[in-house]
This record gives sequence, structure tokens and C-alpha cells, in this order.
Amino acid sequence: MTKPRLPALDLETMRDYIDEIFPEIHHSARTLFIEAVAHGACRIRMRYHPKHLRPGGTLSGAAMMMLADFALYVAVLSAVGREPLAVTTNLSINFLRKPDKADLVAECRLLKAGKRLCVGEVTITSEGGEEPVAHVTGTFSVPPGARD
Amino acid sequence: MTKPRLPALDLETMRDYIDEIFPEIHHSARTLFIEAVAHGACRIRMRYHPKHLRPGGTLSGAAMMMLADFALYVAVLSAVGREPLAVTTNLSINFLRKPDKADLVAECRLLKAGKRLCVGEVTITSEGGEEPVAHVTGTFSVPPGARD
Amino acid sequence: MTKPRLPALDLETMRDYIDEIFPEIHHSARTLFIEAVAHGACRIRMRYHPKHLRPGGTLSGAAMMMLADFALYVAVLSAVGREPLAVTTNLSINFLRKPDKADLVAECRLLKAGKRLCVGEVTITSEGGEEPVAHVTGTFSVPPGARD
Amino acid sequence: MTKPRLPALDLETMRDYIDEIFPEIHHSARTLFIEAVAHGACRIRMRYHPKHLRPGGTLSGAAMMMLADFALYVAVLSAVGREPLAVTTNLSINFLRKPDKADLVAECRLLKAGKRLCVGEVTITSEGGEEPVAHVTGTFSVPPGARD
Repeated sequence: MTKPRLPALDLETMRDYIDEIFPEIHHSARTLFIEAVAHGACRIRMRYHPKHLRPGGTLSGAAMMMLADFALYVAVLSAVGREPLAVTTNLSINFLRKPDKADLVAECRLLKAGKRLCVGEVTITSEGGEEPVAHVTGTFSVPPGARD
Repeated sequence: MTKPRLPALDLETMRDYIDEIFPEIHHSARTLFIEAVAHGACRIRMRYHPKHLRPGGTLSGAAMMMLADFALYVAVLSAVGREPLAVTTNLSINFLRKPDKADLVAECRLLKAGKRLCVGEVTITSEGGEEPVAHVTGTFSVPPGARD
Repeated sequence: MTKPRLPALDLETMRDYIDEIFPEIHHSARTLFIEAVAHGACRIRMRYHPKHLRPGGTLSGAAMMMLADFALYVAVLSAVGREPLAVTTNLSINFLRKPDKADLVAECRLLKAGKRLCVGEVTITSEGGEEPVAHVTGTFSVPPGARD
Repeated sequence: MTKPRLPALDLETMRDYIDEIFPEIHHSARTLFIEAVAHGACRIRMRYHPKHLRPGGTLSGAAMMMLADFALYVAVLSAVGREPLAVTTNLSINFLRKPDKADLVAECRLLKAGKRLCVGEVTITSEGGEEPVAHVTGTFSVPPGARD
């Protein structure tokens, strides 16, 4: 991941592609925005929306898990190209700090992009916050024949 | 968890309590239904809804993670009582099989209900399916002073 | 996993096979014993030994992780046969209770035995204890061409 | 973790302290070496030893898990001081690449050092290797009254 390789889909192409294959993420409100894409990495913003709250007036774990899973998906596509059937096989999340009622920013990078499995790491912070609110690792399975 | 203890909140009370403290789960459509509650255990149904789909026409990992996190929350409340600020500290999910376009049913039981931490396990199946589609373990932190 | 299928290797054969391919587990002291094998399931005993202790006079997390990983490996072999190069890709453990200075017993069952990935669950108890001391889920990758 | 705080125990003190409270890690052969300690971070070397091998002539998952758990323990002590009863509550590991028959080096940093829970991340590489062979996240529980 240290060589300056171009992503398989650039930012504009990735945004259009995701809108085309994954319209469900914008159901009821458009809150997920792809801000940056590199080869095997990306940055995603989840705009604050009260539908993501939980008791205690903080953002729900479910919202953070959805954000992380989406970031991993985009990072996988950025490495292997148009493989919409790449699926999560495993995800593990640690919730570190209570997030503010603010946007969440997810930075994702792949630790491994293999022929069959990709493993990535996501760090989620609150907009303006220094310390991460959550940390995630996840594994995606890529269908046989995926392009790199 | 083998003694026949009564849940801290019975089924009707739990449903009313969740509706009161966690209205966000029904944003845009009511899909989560608490079907059964025991002491440190519960069964939750997630009604099929196209908003939960992802590329490939299958239910998204995010939907299954939300279902599991909700099931763990209800199971924790069933053991410790009205503690709305119980929060997930860690969750780990294995996606086992592609779910059908059908309801998902989550069976949750606590493996440990301690003074500070509760650990639970969730098995998710597709309505009518035999083999689980996902398996989850998660840890919740309970604020000091929780009633049992 | 509900059909009464025979394990790919029966108990005696599994014990001999493991001794042949994995002698390292008995370095310095023989503490791991395969007590039962079914198709996609097994029971392993880790005999108490002071080398497995940690500060506080309790069995170390490392000992429990080794026991769980070994149980998963045996369960995978019981489903796919002689595939010594099956490797762990992911393991997640929750430590629930402090184990006694006693034998540990691990019960393992596979949640999924696929062509490429097997996912299993391990429950570890202290000899004579009722409640589990640890719970584990793990994923193994099986080399292409594995027999079932 | 970005402020240049001194570790609660410096390198020499930490080495002596671990030797005193955790002699079991050196049973049969001294393979774990604490190379560096900072506040909430450390670097540990696991010297290559054939006792850590598994089928396929590679280092076992169990050896890597032990290394990671030990690194997390040292990192926790470096932040909270002499708290030998700090215990792992949860650990999750992704095995990324097959390690060489060489030393393993673990770099650990805490993502959170709370009053009750510490969460850390460990990256394990083979001596001389560029890409990590394993990545771990773990949570430790610190007994009430821990000094910082």
C-alpha cells in the first residue's frame, strides 16, 4: 500500500458507480459522502442526521458500523475495480469514545488486498475531534476473477 | 443463565420502553419487532424491507449489524433493567451465508451479565432458513449503579 | 451440522495425525488432549500446567487462545479431512470469567464449512465449572482442492 | 497519545517488573524481549524458536496471539503503572500474510486508556519484512483504583 498506485476508480467515477449500484444507502436521506479515494484507501463523511441517534443523544453504534462497512467496501473497490459482489465476511468494531452530535469522518485503508480476501482498517472520528470515536477491522471476500 | 429468572422488563413493558427511549430505530419504516424476552435473552424480528438491500440483491451487512446490536441492547436491558445508557463497547460479526429477501430473526443470549460489562451472542437466521446467516458477539458497558 | 455425518478422521486417526503433523504443540509438556471428534466438531482438554499461568494466579489469555485455535483446527480437519495447511485467518475471543487452576475444556463446532472458509465457535469452561470462562469465534481458510 | 508523556515505567524498570510478576512467559525458552516503551505504547520482539512453528513450517497463530496479548499488557502497564491484574477482556486478530521463519516484531499503541478499559492495536511484522503479518485489537480491563 506504500507505492503511489492510482485507485481502480477515481473519485468521480467511484461516486457515480456507488450511486448506480448501491442506491439503498441514500434511503430517506443522503448522509454518506465519498470525500477521497486512493488505491486501497478512502475517506467517507457521514453527515450528522437525527435518524442516527440513540438513547443518550449520541450517534448509534449501528450508524458507525454502517459507515465503517461502507468505507471498507469503497476501499476494496478502489483496489480491485468494479466488483459489486465483494461482500463482508467479518467485521469487528471497538467503540472508544462517545461521539458528538456532529459529522463522522471515516478513514479507511486496506491492510491486505489478496486475490480472495481483503482486510481493512477504519478509524472514525467526530468532525473537529482529535481522538478516534471508533476503530474497525473488517474482511471482505472478493469473487473469483476480480480484476486488480 | 440457566435458572428460570424473570426478565427485568416483560415483553409488553420492554416494547413500550424501547418505543419511548429509542424512537430512532423506526425512522422511515418500522422494521424491528421484539418477539420474546427472557432474563438475559430475547428474540427480535427484522421485517424485510428493500431499504436494507445491497448490491447483489441481498440484505446488507449494516442491516444485520443493526439488528444484532439492537438485540444485544434488549437482552442487556432484560437483565439489568431500565439502563438506557448501556452502550456497546465492542461487536464482532461473522457473515456466514447470503440471506434471502425475507425477514431476519435474531436470537440473543447473554454469556455474561456482570456489574460493569455484559457479553452476549446473537445468531441471525433468515425466516424459514435452517442455517444461520450471521453470528455475532458483543460487549456492552453498563453505567455504575445498574439495577439487576 | 445437524445430520449425523461421520468425521473425516475418527478419534484415533485424528490423534495420530495431529501427533504426526503438529508435534510443536507438545513442546516442553503434553497438555492438549483430543477427547472427542464429530463431523465439524470436537472437544479438547488442556491439562492444567503452571506454565500457562499469568499474574493473579489464573490461566493466561494466551493459553486459552492457543486452546481455541487448536480446537478450531481439529474441527476443520474433522470436516475437510487431511488438510494440514488450513490456516486461521481471523480469531476473536471474549474472556468472560477468571478460570480456576484446573483443566480447561473446549467445545468447538463449525458454524459454516465452506469450500474456501470455515467459521467455528468455541466455548471454554474450567473443569467442573458451569459457566464458560471464554467464548471464541474463528475463521479458517482451506487451500483450494480440499476434500470434504 | 500524541503528547510526549513519559511511560509509567521506563524500559529497564518494565523489564525487571515483568520478569518479577510474569516469569511464565519464559518457560522453556526466553523468546519475548521488550525493546521499547513509551506512554501507552511499546515494541516487543519474539525471537524465532522452532517451538512456535505449526504445519506448513510457519509461525503459529497461537504464537502471534501470545505476542500481541503480551504487547498489549506491557502497553497498558506503561500507561497505568504497576497494575499486574489488568486482564484481557477481548482480543481480535487478523492474520494477513504467512510469516517467515524469523523473529516477529510487535508494535503496540493504545487507542484509548480509560479508567476502566484500555483498547490497543498491535501490528506484527516479520523481521526484515515490510508488510504486516498480523493485526490485532484488544481490550484490557483495569481494576478499580489504577494509578495513571
